Amino acid sequence: MTAADRDALKRELVTLAMDMIARRCAVVGKNDLAAETRMARSRIDEVFPEEDDLFDAIVEHWYADDIATMEEVVASSLPIRRKFYEFFARRFVRERERYRKDPALFALYVQMGSEKFERVRGYIDLADHYLSELIAQAQDEGFFPDLTIDRALTLINQMVVCYVSPQLMLILEERLAEDKLAAIVDTMFAGLTGGDRGAAGVKGLRAISVQ
Amino acid sequence: MTAADRDALKRELVTLAMDMIARRCAVVGKNDLAAETRMARSRIDEVFPEEDDLFDAIVEHWYADDIATMEEVVASSLPIRRKFYEFFARRFVRERERYRKDPALFALYVQMGSEKFERVRGYIDLADHYLSELIAQAQDEGFFPDLTIDRALTLINQMVVCYVSPQLMLILEERLAEDKLAAIVDTMFAGLTGGDRGAAGVKGLRAISVQ
Repeated sequence: MTAADRDALKRELVTLAMDMIARRCAVVGKNDLAAETRMARSRIDEVFPEEDDLFDAIVEHWYADDIATMEEVVASSLPIRRKFYEFFARRFVRERERYRKDPALFALYVQMGSEKFERVRGYIDLADHYLSELIAQAQDEGFFPDLTIDRALTLINQMVVCYVSPQLMLILEERLAEDKLAAIVDTMFAGLTGGDRGAAGVKGLRAISVQ
Repeated sequence: MTAADRDALKRELVTLAMDMIARRCAVVGKNDLAAETRMARSRIDEVFPEEDDLFDAIVEHWYADDIATMEEVVASSLPIRRKFYEFFARRFVRERERYRKDPALFALYVQMGSEKFERVRGYIDLADHYLSELIAQAQDEGFFPDLTIDRALTLINQMVVCYVSPQLMLILEERLAEDKLAAIVDTMFAGLTGGDRGAAGVKGLRAISVQ
């Protein structure tokens, strides 16, 4: 096979595998693919040498649109606050569509991702990378003062986790809404700064020095 | 049995059931209790007429400290911002202890709670009730302006969900920390208000009226 042939066959097999997962609502492996397609096992092995290569290709397909979205938003000329909102909202709306279309299938994908989390982590790291770029842009404009990028990143990720976590989509979908996400983003822009502002209590008390 | 005897036996059986759950890392029912205690089934039935009554008693025990904590914090004379922090932090620290002591057991309780969520919901509603009281106190002091209590409630619950959701404890425990929770509470106090502030984009555009 040429590289182009292999890519085309790979796309075809990934689509087929995801159709099979949707139909059966069960994990699909290379054996299932071979049985379904009646294709020579050697052809499938050429595209997916290991079982995990099929899994990785499915994950890649699952996240492809998200990555395109994040790149588009980061590169856009929207005001920075709108960029933050769009960064989360566009992916959230697509995930919610997937969830609503077939909640059981969505739950299966969540479970598959949880079980092989180390193979999904790269995509989460990539989202962190793009979000860090947005944070740097926001800080250039004076938002999120007195915070390192990593600190702002972890706090922002935690505050919007409802709109990013597929596990929470399964539990909370009814309570999630774009206008709430917007209110949370606005709250971050108005209120997220470094320094202790009183919630955690009195800090840095010093012993009275005796002269 | 007198009511006092029944209460004492109930406490004893709940403690025993939870010990058994911890030992076996499996759900424990009335049959298991009867086998373990060699107690007459009729005595167990008197305390727990239905299978769900045992479950409810375990849930009640699980949440007892949390309810005491919430009542204490709401009634305290702490500054309002501190109250918010303590309201979440004290329960979070206790949950994290439970999780760290035995992650598999914690996961089992999360699963038990998810499967009978309608029997746990009352405790979540109670937490919402106490949080609503705190929000009213905060609004009296001028925080969270231009928001109904319910709207502030849903936004705050979403922003601190990492520190409240047992499902997220299972996934994110390493990334959770009291100082991050404090930063999120401070962010809410500084930035959570009603009204559109730009994240969601241009709203309320009107058609130009032709005179």
